[in-house]
Amino acid sequence: MTETMTNPVLINGQWTKSLASQHFCASNPSIREEIPRDFPVSPWSEIDQALTAAAEASRLMRNWSGSRFAEFLEAYATEIEARADELVAAAHEETALPLSPRLADVELPRTTNQLRLAAAASRHESWREATIDTSSGIRSMRGPVGPVVVFGPNNFPFAFNGIAGGDFAAAIAAGNPVIAKGHSSHPETTRIFAEAALAAIESADMPRALVQLIYRTTHDDGYRLVSDSRIAACGYTGARSTGLKLKAAADAAGKPIYLELSSINPVFILDGVLNQRLDETVDEFVGSCLMGAGQFCTNPGLVVVSDNDAGQKFAGAVAERFMAATPGTMLSEGVCRAFGESIEVLTKAGADLLAGGQTGGGTGVSFANTLLAVSGTEFLRQPETFQTEAFGNGALFVLADSVDQMEEIAENLEGNLTGCICSATDGSDDAAYDQLEPVLRTRVGRLLNDKMPTGVAVSPSMNHGGPFPATGHPGFTAVGIPASVPRFAALYCYDNVRPDRLPRLLQDASPGANVWRNIDGQWSTGDVG
Amino acid sequence: MTETMTNPVLINGQWTKSLASQHFCASNPSIREEIPRDFPVSPWSEIDQALTAAAEASRLMRNWSGSRFAEFLEAYATEIEARADELVAAAHEETALPLSPRLADVELPRTTNQLRLAAAASRHESWREATIDTSSGIRSMRGPVGPVVVFGPNNFPFAFNGIAGGDFAAAIAAGNPVIAKGHSSHPETTRIFAEAALAAIESADMPRALVQLIYRTTHDDGYRLVSDSRIAACGYTGARSTGLKLKAAADAAGKPIYLELSSINPVFILDGVLNQRLDETVDEFVGSCLMGAGQFCTNPGLVVVSDNDAGQKFAGAVAERFMAATPGTMLSEGVCRAFGESIEVLTKAGADLLAGGQTGGGTGVSFANTLLAVSGTEFLRQPETFQTEAFGNGALFVLADSVDQMEEIAENLEGNLTGCICSATDGSDDAAYDQLEPVLRTRVGRLLNDKMPTGVAVSPSMNHGGPFPATGHPGFTAVGIPASVPRFAALYCYDNVRPDRLPRLLQDASPGANVWRNIDGQWSTGDVG
Repeated sequence: MTETMTNPVLINGQWTKSLASQHFCASNPSIREEIPRDFPVSPWSEIDQALTAAAEASRLMRNWSGSRFAEFLEAYATEIEARADELVAAAHEETALPLSPRLADVELPRTTNQLRLAAAASRHESWREATIDTSSGIRSMRGPVGPVVVFGPNNFPFAFNGIAGGDFAAAIAAGNPVIAKGHSSHPETTRIFAEAALAAIESADMPRALVQLIYRTTHDDGYRLVSDSRIAACGYTGARSTGLKLKAAADAAGKPIYLELSSINPVFILDGVLNQRLDETVDEFVGSCLMGAGQFCTNPGLVVVSDNDAGQKFAGAVAERFMAATPGTMLSEGVCRAFGESIEVLTKAGADLLAGGQTGGGTGVSFANTLLAVSGTEFLRQPETFQTEAFGNGALFVLADSVDQMEEIAENLEGNLTGCICSATDGSDDAAYDQLEPVLRTRVGRLLNDKMPTGVAVSPSMNHGGPFPATGHPGFTAVGIPASVPRFAALYCYDNVRPDRLPRLLQDASPGANVWRNIDGQWSTGDVG
Repeated sequence: MTETMTNPVLINGQWTKSLASQHFCASNPSIREEIPRDFPVSPWSEIDQALTAAAEASRLMRNWSGSRFAEFLEAYATEIEARADELVAAAHEETALPLSPRLADVELPRTTNQLRLAAAASRHESWREATIDTSSGIRSMRGPVGPVVVFGPNNFPFAFNGIAGGDFAAAIAAGNPVIAKGHSSHPETTRIFAEAALAAIESADMPRALVQLIYRTTHDDGYRLVSDSRIAACGYTGARSTGLKLKAAADAAGKPIYLELSSINPVFILDGVLNQRLDETVDEFVGSCLMGAGQFCTNPGLVVVSDNDAGQKFAGAVAERFMAATPGTMLSEGVCRAFGESIEVLTKAGADLLAGGQTGGGTGVSFANTLLAVSGTEFLRQPETFQTEAFGNGALFVLADSVDQMEEIAENLEGNLTGCICSATDGSDDAAYDQLEPVLRTRVGRLLNDKMPTGVAVSPSMNHGGPFPATGHPGFTAVGIPASVPRFAALYCYDNVRPDRLPRLLQDASPGANVWRNIDGQWSTGDVG
């Protein structure tokens, strides 16, 4: 294939020439030039084929054991590692994210680690929470929900990619085929993943429609896709506006859709901690806020400090550091433009500009590191406007006149992925902590103490989720295995079903020494009885 | 209060005179007469007061231990038992459901049992699935989601009542205040519950807004209620049309809403079982289908048998029994009218009438026990129309020309709460079972063998749920404790939170000998480490 030909799509295990009449190319943000590789905007007829193939694969795999999916996921991780250099080069070209530390040594290992953790969960099957009630003769477990479509975001070309990231791994681990909708900003990265996935499908002898790839659709076809009768559930990570439209379409059709939308990740930094460790706190905040040009879902975009000497000194120190640091290259012209628009919304509403505020200053697509400030009273006058997400290397400081005002600010927060309270170790902030924590607790998925929110560990106890509009449901997490897997499951209950007809996991004999089941209210790895 | 005065509403612990300009009365379906007790259609101002009080109660209870809620639930169950005679009399007058076996000896004990099981779950806290990852320093558990509104249905005045039933018990057990929206067909029953709840609130020293009661709202205010910023989640059991409108409103506001809507509960009766035990199967089916005038969510409304001698003999025997049995009294004129309309839809589409088809024949509001039949080929021509729910004492038989056709029928089924396959014990139906089971499995929440679906045990392994449109999410159950409780929870994650600031459940020391926690991947009742 030459680079002027349009790339084919992956439908039912075949790289299929697209019938697209519209095409697109990605750009290299480091040099602000289009990358001459042509990708299709698939017409509905192609999506329709993928849907039919996914439904057929789902039917075929209905009673397959988790180990089949584990074998695929492990083979896929190995294929990805074999093509690591290619993937890293493509992702770097398409996103300008640093090779190291990031794409090569952080995000790619994290991605293969997620796939292997998902494999372990799938093999293990404890995530299914087999529940056996011997007195009623009723047994239940989580089973596959059916074909899943996954939309990946622009900011994690590996770890959240629709064809390789967390939602993908969770959907496969639950036993479902996936139709991946690649992100338009890194199609070549996604294409290489799809080749690796196809190789793994072949080596693990899975249905060829287990993983399919569409690079892009029209908006209307996107809504049609998530609400199609052949789709059972959807995962989406990305911008709020698009996410809410997909949610409306999926909701109307009664399909679960798991969203990870915007989040400004409020950080409350109390007086005592600024007295105890001002310089370290400046370091930690600046590092967290500017890392990856601030293009993280958990970037600390809203900082609340006291409007006193300590708070002003902190804001001043951060502003200096922001001005001194070279801004990172942003993911795309679109991200840069949206960031500038958000900054404008905030300044027009009355925020003061302490640093930055204009495009440029870095390599390629860039925007000056931007720090804004507003008083607590002003914030509370327009709390919605001052929670406008500015996705990028910037933050809004709120200077509060009292802890009571901090509490009122917390009460006015929308749902967020994370919320942090930094407090002194000498007890001087404890009263303020106790006042703020209960309020912040209900507005965020992950509550942190004394550290910035940008690291998202893949831990069984992680919650990368939170109340609307950070996500669409406060009970689920998009990161963390096995916790993210049940999103793509249905509850399968068996009532009076004859013992030999039960799934192995629900039969009396223990399905394995590592498999936890809830038997008559007690968790056990043993046999029934 | 005389009976001509409008009943007050329960807002923030006070029986408050309603400012309603509209009122309503319930009817006694046994004698088809209005019951002269006047209840208000609350204006928004009243609902608004309830919302504010619920939000305040939710804030107050944020960190309360489960035992506080358990004490309330147990006190409430005791109060209900003390007023059992009153409740049973009111419910019988308002619904015509039999005193025994049903209201006095089945549904009321089931209701208090559910409340006590919910109390045990709340005290126990295993349902929170505390998850501790010692290596990352991240710990998480389920916490209260916030104020919940519960809409109860007409057909279970006790066990699904918005102020006493399964959704109510689950929402309280999770630590949330509840605004109950009573069903208009049994307001007096609901009023007595509210008095009992208030007494329990007082004796257990709970916030007075823990339980509030609105009897009725306008449709628009209902949509506004479920989408209000002070509401965190909603439970609804009832008609599909209303449920879908509430769902649209809640979805648009990003609020989880748990629905239990229509279900026709398909039953496949295979040839062998009719050969082995025709008479018993007729008995079981007729008993299940006509019990409570068929007004159960799990009533078997669609029966698939072979179009052969055995199938026709079965249909004929059921028709005879339907004609011989006196129809039960229905819940209301509206239910009777809707049943007749659905029968008309089915006959107009081509179903043959084998029995019944007209109103009357029983005491008060009644409709003849109605049996319809259609060929498999006809069914497959209009599968949606032939899945029209006829809520009442009737069923549609589908006479299939082959097991392949049965499978095709199963493939065309919408989501249902239950699905059943009755097969012979001599192995003669095993091939057909193996062909049908995988298809039916993904279309129902609870899969049964060899028994009718109308019993819904309150078991930890129960799934009273299923794919849309039976419910709004295939992963949740409305019945079964603790399984129904997490619907009203959010995932609370703590990252690097100092040990003494963690909820007791997430601290190193075991919170109790019966409390299961997942520590580094293993379920345990012990300490961390």
